[in-house]
Amino acid sequence: MQNLNAAQVNVRGPFLRELMERAADKLIPYQWQALNDLIPDAEPSYCIRNMKAAAHITDTPHGGCVFQDSDLYKWIEAASLSLTWRKNAELEKQLDETAQLIAKAQMPDGYINTYYQLHDIKERFTNLRDNHELYCAGHLIEAACAHYEATGKRTLLDTACRFAALIDREFGREDGKKRGYPGHEEIELALIKLYSITHDEAHLRLAKYFIDERGAENQYFDEEARARGASGGWSRSIYSHNRYYQAGEPVRQQKHALGHAVRQLYLLSGMADVARETGDETLAAACKEMWKDITRRQMYITGQVGQSSFGEAFTYDYDLPNDTVYGETCASIALFFFAQRMLKLEAKGEYGDICDTLLYNGTISGMNLEGNRFFYVNPLENVPERSRKNQIFAHIKPERVKWFGCACCPPNLARMLAALPSSLYTYDKNTLYVNLFSGSDVNAELDGGQVKLIVSTDYPASGRVSIKVCEAFEGFTLALRLPRWVRTYTLTLNGKTTPTVMDEGYLYIERPKAGDEIVYDMDMPVRVVRAHPRVNSDAGLLAVMRGPVVYCAEEADNGDMLWNVSISPDTEFEAVKCAKMDIPLPALRAKALRTQEAPWDEYELYSDVHTPTYEEITAEFVPYYAWNNRGKGEMRVWLRESPLSAIR
Amino acid sequence: MQNLNAAQVNVRGPFLRELMERAADKLIPYQWQALNDLIPDAEPSYCIRNMKAAAHITDTPHGGCVFQDSDLYKWIEAASLSLTWRKNAELEKQLDETAQLIAKAQMPDGYINTYYQLHDIKERFTNLRDNHELYCAGHLIEAACAHYEATGKRTLLDTACRFAALIDREFGREDGKKRGYPGHEEIELALIKLYSITHDEAHLRLAKYFIDERGAENQYFDEEARARGASGGWSRSIYSHNRYYQAGEPVRQQKHALGHAVRQLYLLSGMADVARETGDETLAAACKEMWKDITRRQMYITGQVGQSSFGEAFTYDYDLPNDTVYGETCASIALFFFAQRMLKLEAKGEYGDICDTLLYNGTISGMNLEGNRFFYVNPLENVPERSRKNQIFAHIKPERVKWFGCACCPPNLARMLAALPSSLYTYDKNTLYVNLFSGSDVNAELDGGQVKLIVSTDYPASGRVSIKVCEAFEGFTLALRLPRWVRTYTLTLNGKTTPTVMDEGYLYIERPKAGDEIVYDMDMPVRVVRAHPRVNSDAGLLAVMRGPVVYCAEEADNGDMLWNVSISPDTEFEAVKCAKMDIPLPALRAKALRTQEAPWDEYELYSDVHTPTYEEITAEFVPYYAWNNRGKGEMRVWLRESPLSAIR
Repeated sequence: MQNLNAAQVNVRGPFLRELMERAADKLIPYQWQALNDLIPDAEPSYCIRNMKAAAHITDTPHGGCVFQDSDLYKWIEAASLSLTWRKNAELEKQLDETAQLIAKAQMPDGYINTYYQLHDIKERFTNLRDNHELYCAGHLIEAACAHYEATGKRTLLDTACRFAALIDREFGREDGKKRGYPGHEEIELALIKLYSITHDEAHLRLAKYFIDERGAENQYFDEEARARGASGGWSRSIYSHNRYYQAGEPVRQQKHALGHAVRQLYLLSGMADVARETGDETLAAACKEMWKDITRRQMYITGQVGQSSFGEAFTYDYDLPNDTVYGETCASIALFFFAQRMLKLEAKGEYGDICDTLLYNGTISGMNLEGNRFFYVNPLENVPERSRKNQIFAHIKPERVKWFGCACCPPNLARMLAALPSSLYTYDKNTLYVNLFSGSDVNAELDGGQVKLIVSTDYPASGRVSIKVCEAFEGFTLALRLPRWVRTYTLTLNGKTTPTVMDEGYLYIERPKAGDEIVYDMDMPVRVVRAHPRVNSDAGLLAVMRGPVVYCAEEADNGDMLWNVSISPDTEFEAVKCAKMDIPLPALRAKALRTQEAPWDEYELYSDVHTPTYEEITAEFVPYYAWNNRGKGEMRVWLRESPLSAIR
Repeated sequence: MQNLNAAQVNVRGPFLRELMERAADKLIPYQWQALNDLIPDAEPSYCIRNMKAAAHITDTPHGGCVFQDSDLYKWIEAASLSLTWRKNAELEKQLDETAQLIAKAQMPDGYINTYYQLHDIKERFTNLRDNHELYCAGHLIEAACAHYEATGKRTLLDTACRFAALIDREFGREDGKKRGYPGHEEIELALIKLYSITHDEAHLRLAKYFIDERGAENQYFDEEARARGASGGWSRSIYSHNRYYQAGEPVRQQKHALGHAVRQLYLLSGMADVARETGDETLAAACKEMWKDITRRQMYITGQVGQSSFGEAFTYDYDLPNDTVYGETCASIALFFFAQRMLKLEAKGEYGDICDTLLYNGTISGMNLEGNRFFYVNPLENVPERSRKNQIFAHIKPERVKWFGCACCPPNLARMLAALPSSLYTYDKNTLYVNLFSGSDVNAELDGGQVKLIVSTDYPASGRVSIKVCEAFEGFTLALRLPRWVRTYTLTLNGKTTPTVMDEGYLYIERPKAGDEIVYDMDMPVRVVRAHPRVNSDAGLLAVMRGPVVYCAEEADNGDMLWNVSISPDTEFEAVKCAKMDIPLPALRAKALRTQEAPWDEYELYSDVHTPTYEEITAEFVPYYAWNNRGKGEMRVWLRESPLSAIR
């Protein structure tokens, strides 16, 4: 199974196109400013400065984190991707110059990492566990692939290939090589991308080596730590035996998502890629097992993963605290990447369902509507005073910020959005799978021939998708994802309901012909949702959804102390135009109850004499992704179930 | 106002006597073993070893924390106090030898602190903020006072006075003295105890100085940090300007309990003492203001305080998370000490109410029923798996442990329990205040004459207290605390209901005569309690109380996933003998609902299609203090309000 790419898909939107435009018009230029340390009173990035120093153009010390280079590489990838669907001569020039700068900074033997080049180069490759060299290499490779595919220029691709060749000489099972693997995975999936361009078996082999060697008996991280005279493992960590780094046992034996969430998900993405390229069934099975653990037992309703701020990590099944949550934007994006790869491994609608969940909730919540403020942590419950005064919650920023010292999230969001054209459709032989719904023009060569489609929809504002078949071939099959949330839908071919096969979350339409008009209409009522009874943190709470979009209550609409607002499972909701924000989705209104403070006086903290009194209010809900665009305030996704609901 | 002491009060119990006996039979001997590092597979204490090394008897390095000596001093205090109500020749011998050992370890100029004596003595008094010398000095003084009062022996008292004299020479506003004050308060209240024995004005003056100087403009902690070339304040802390140490502004200007909970409460205890001794109204007012903030806005229903594990600290008003709670045993004990002092500042029943709350809940929960396992942190919700797998909750130990490297709590509990005889009654001129109810014989000289009472009760098993007046004098007044939880009560004098004045939480009985029999019967129904609507963490939750005792649900009685158990505010409870544990209080049984997992399958984490189904169960509740005496398991104080309660 393969995905259609930006050359084959023109995304018209509206919803996804606006996100792409925001990436191109706001995120990418803004981040270029950031990479050049030009944003007033924001934490500096140092990226360009470091690269110039490594290239001996300037003489400044290294600034920022050990993985700082990756921010630049991710920006290059995002910017290059944007060129595949929107030409921009000035941006292309910036990219060419940056590619040359990086080539200039590269050492003769192919090594490049400004941290080690500007500190002590003799130390390179001595701390794979903590110091992210192979992670940065991975992002360089991804950037190079994107730049090459967008522009056909080899500058950066050659730089990447030289570094990949060096890494191949350094690491592997052959005599004289280090049997290491990265502490932060990323290079595995990057090498597969490189392989898809170079078709150089060495790149596939190296990716496979990193995955197969990981967690092997020898415990490389402990070996290299001993060699450094450093301590093994991570102090104060509950993750024994390098499990924080997914290196506790071989990857095929790992059954639960554990440790650093982004690392876990980049590893799984690389595993899925290698499984697809090599047909490795055991590796594919491991991916499917982990997919279940993550999406069915460790994922927030908005798609966020990584429950613990300690180590940005997964914790355990059904542990989903809404207040102490971490839910890093990068982790949501990483899960989107993993889901995209699973879609290429097997045709199952659930992978597309999770892409939907992520795309309309837990990923884009990481930026504001203007595209110039960002969240690193995405809470499901925000109480600004608590973040300020109870240090356990200090990692939850009550407002999006301009930039971060560790700015992994904004460039990650940019590259995910810039890659949307290649995220909508997959195909296998003669079957085209519609995984994400967006207005778009498809013009693609499948095994059996050419297909041209015009897809029109305002999804997720509504669930109506119409598809005009402009060109098709004998034996063409169109598969439409049937989201899990859909209860009723109609599907008509040229106005007549048509028989379809439903399998694994797809509706299969056999042999649509040129001129056919398909109308797929998914009813999109507001749903009041509960969590599995094993989830402690959501017991007695209700969430509000419409289609794939999770809604939340904000202080701006509902006042503070949102924990006193309760709704009933049979509440009737009214979808209204969102008056206070410019978003393409409706706000929701419903009757709710608010617990009154009335009978309490300041001298009672606990009492058995007050029967609570409730005021009936009209509560307003906005899409979760759009929260905190109207200043600082409380927010809640999960609301209390009204104690009166039973008599409603 | 003064308190009756152990010479005037014989505690018969049963409840409090059992606690005292447990302290004498279990805690104190067990802790002596611990102090001598004789408990197998428990963290060593090093206390005696350090003292012997400081006395040049042995030659071992210092072991344990910088405040390790205080554990020994607290044990001496507890052991001495126990001698005031139960003779023990062997224990007295241990105490004498220990007192001599400490005297031998003291330096010629009076200084004593094994950490500095065994590290670098030249460093002494250079880091008052972090290094606890004055805190240890305070515990030495308290131990010395208790040892002197129990035995009449001066060895330790002289040692304490010599150290106090040195401290007086070192610190103060006079020229040539350091204008410092302790980073961990304790010496203030200790010096007042010393003053009550020595009547040396210098001791009162020094206590007053430490309180008045605290938080003054000069910011001593920053000065000494600069002198050390160290950083000011505490890294990563949300507490700016030394507020973590209650030194942000002068104590009379502090309105909210802030920073380290035990430090805050020891400071307030010292402030209340100085206010009483000096009649300082502004200081008394500051104590009352802080009392309100703590007990009405920052105290858990079980009496615990200190909401944050980060820095064992207070956070802010109405922030009372049940899961991330810290609630250190020492902090509960410190609040008990503060409440005891407020009782001597003014006759208000609410101080006794909080003593009750603490005595029967959040303090004694720190030890098991056997008296040989201890909690440092006292959660209101325990999920063992979460403590093991989500590091945010790692500070919550799912089971009591044998001992701690930092073992402040067990000896603190021992000295609090050993001091109970002096915690029950206060008097002012001719009025005797009954603050805590326990079977006890009172034989005391008030201003107007002698009073002899025999008080009999099984409180808190029941609310019935009978008082036989054996001797009284003209103008004697007896004041009985009327707890806030009492709704109905009867009070009879010789069988006839008698007119009484009710004022500030006390019932005043005028002129009881010898031979009078007073029967005070407080109805003690089970109460279903709610928290103030400003408390986020308790919204939609109910707690169960009977008299002053808070109950909880344990896995041992109710199975796991206690978040799925819900009760109704009008639930009827049955008090039954607690069959599974040997405790003098009943267990409670009630109908409850348990959410069923039934309709869910493993593939659904969130769903709008399942209407929850509830099984009616008989839930059993046990007193909170007795939880975790039957192995590891879940526990909850606050239970969900049943969604069906409205139609009950």
